[in-house]
Amino acid sequence: MSPVSPVRGVFTPALTPFAADLSVDQDRFLEHCKWLLANGASGLAVFGTTSEANSLTVQERMQALAALVDAGVSPAVLMPGTGCSSLFDSVTLSKHAAQHGCLGVLLLPPFYYKSVSDDGIFATTSEIIQRVGDARLRIYLYHIPQMAGAGYSLPVIGRLTREYPKAVVGIKDSSGDWKNTEAILRNFPGFETFSGSETFLLDTLRLGGAGCISATANVNAAGIAHLVDTWKDSQADDIQKRITTLRKAFEKYPMIPALKATISRQRHDDSWNTVRPPLRPLPPQAGKDLAARLDELGFVLDAVSETVR
Amino acid sequence: MSPVSPVRGVFTPALTPFAADLSVDQDRFLEHCKWLLANGASGLAVFGTTSEANSLTVQERMQALAALVDAGVSPAVLMPGTGCSSLFDSVTLSKHAAQHGCLGVLLLPPFYYKSVSDDGIFATTSEIIQRVGDARLRIYLYHIPQMAGAGYSLPVIGRLTREYPKAVVGIKDSSGDWKNTEAILRNFPGFETFSGSETFLLDTLRLGGAGCISATANVNAAGIAHLVDTWKDSQADDIQKRITTLRKAFEKYPMIPALKATISRQRHDDSWNTVRPPLRPLPPQAGKDLAARLDELGFVLDAVSETVR
Repeated sequence: MSPVSPVRGVFTPALTPFAADLSVDQDRFLEHCKWLLANGASGLAVFGTTSEANSLTVQERMQALAALVDAGVSPAVLMPGTGCSSLFDSVTLSKHAAQHGCLGVLLLPPFYYKSVSDDGIFATTSEIIQRVGDARLRIYLYHIPQMAGAGYSLPVIGRLTREYPKAVVGIKDSSGDWKNTEAILRNFPGFETFSGSETFLLDTLRLGGAGCISATANVNAAGIAHLVDTWKDSQADDIQKRITTLRKAFEKYPMIPALKATISRQRHDDSWNTVRPPLRPLPPQAGKDLAARLDELGFVLDAVSETVR
Repeated sequence: MSPVSPVRGVFTPALTPFAADLSVDQDRFLEHCKWLLANGASGLAVFGTTSEANSLTVQERMQALAALVDAGVSPAVLMPGTGCSSLFDSVTLSKHAAQHGCLGVLLLPPFYYKSVSDDGIFATTSEIIQRVGDARLRIYLYHIPQMAGAGYSLPVIGRLTREYPKAVVGIKDSSGDWKNTEAILRNFPGFETFSGSETFLLDTLRLGGAGCISATANVNAAGIAHLVDTWKDSQADDIQKRITTLRKAFEKYPMIPALKATISRQRHDDSWNTVRPPLRPLPPQAGKDLAARLDELGFVLDAVSETVR
């Protein structure tokens, strides 16, 4: 048995609600974060892909994070995304997160230039760690090559964990490639490995992984957390099947608008449909189709722990 | 004959020199920009892909632009890149450029999210124009889908030019797909169309296009400008061949480090080799191979107008 990761569970890349003028709706953001933590989320990977973080400015991200902490959300459960296309922006955000005592940061590699070398990814991460210069910095690498156009290869993970064993502590593998997640788990025991989707959660936990950081944890953190609590039990495969079925209902649509449309519908709150360009709200017919499928599955947001288990 | 574009010539996406601490080397930047304008460049598309612009912060870009203008570079020849992954950053930079009286801005679409809809690209551009709210804003769309993961389709160009005929005035097509450039030229006469490489310059000019905005104009603006001046002459195809040959010498290597290495070598200035991560300097052997090839072609940076013509 591989060593068990010290940080475990379901981390939610919390959606970012917007006001009609497209500014961050801090009240709804706080409300959503508190609701997630009260309903299954072990922590919040705020400012991830699902959070439309790369449609926010550096200033907006720092203000929204500080406001969460000021409003009583413990930084010990926060893992903000801090990786930007500009090195110095990544330094600014990572330093800010460390200074606020966050559990860790979820670090995208720079995502504009393509065909970037392993050496370039290592150099970027290394510069960030040295420029932040804060022993509290704990980095979770964010591997999502299909979106970022760059990623953390196994050799880069090896080099980073050897060079910076205290700073580089884990990874979120959103490649969707289980073979890659499996290779990370087998090659780096003790490295805190999160699957980027609950589809691979049971497999990840069985190999000593930490859990998952998944978009659909915005609507089903409790259902996913139930598997983290019971993965050694005989019914674990059945629970895995049920949470995968719900996930697949969302995967038929653009994920972020689909999640926002679902919260909007279940909370009777039109405002939740707002996305920032370049994203667009879910078209009405897609919204109806998704809602019908969710009704079929008996999905109710505020009773999710009962209905999805 | 298609109408001739009012803005014409070779625009250089000026390289950004960095100091050893990776900060923008404003002195070398100014020197390079002035040298380009004195040696063939009609204008400068500062903060493009070749400028490592997406490795810079918004603040760095505004400071460097203002410093150029303060140092006497006419804003009437400046076309700064202003498209970021965050809508509000694009607004900030575009407003800043318009307020400084720049000829135009070169607008990347938001480049993090993939599979973005035409409607999302239109909405982004539309929001930028409305939020900038400055009649001086002139946008050149920057189409480089292989890097940005998003681009401006023909229907989007049509919709934008119909809706905002005074603001959306041209395009840089860096797709490398001549069929696409040709379709833009044929469908939108009078739209200021620049090829993203001098390889297609003669073809672009013959269809009424504006010129090119090309990375290699950092080392060969004079040679490329010579074709713009003489494209109707009988030797135009020969000149096209010669500038294409030089371009191809660079295309064998990572373009930005190769250009910086060439300037570094020709100016005997090591500092020019510095790139910002995730890019890495050109490896020594590649640098030697490139230099040998350039020697073979008789390339001399400061005598480029003689040697390359």
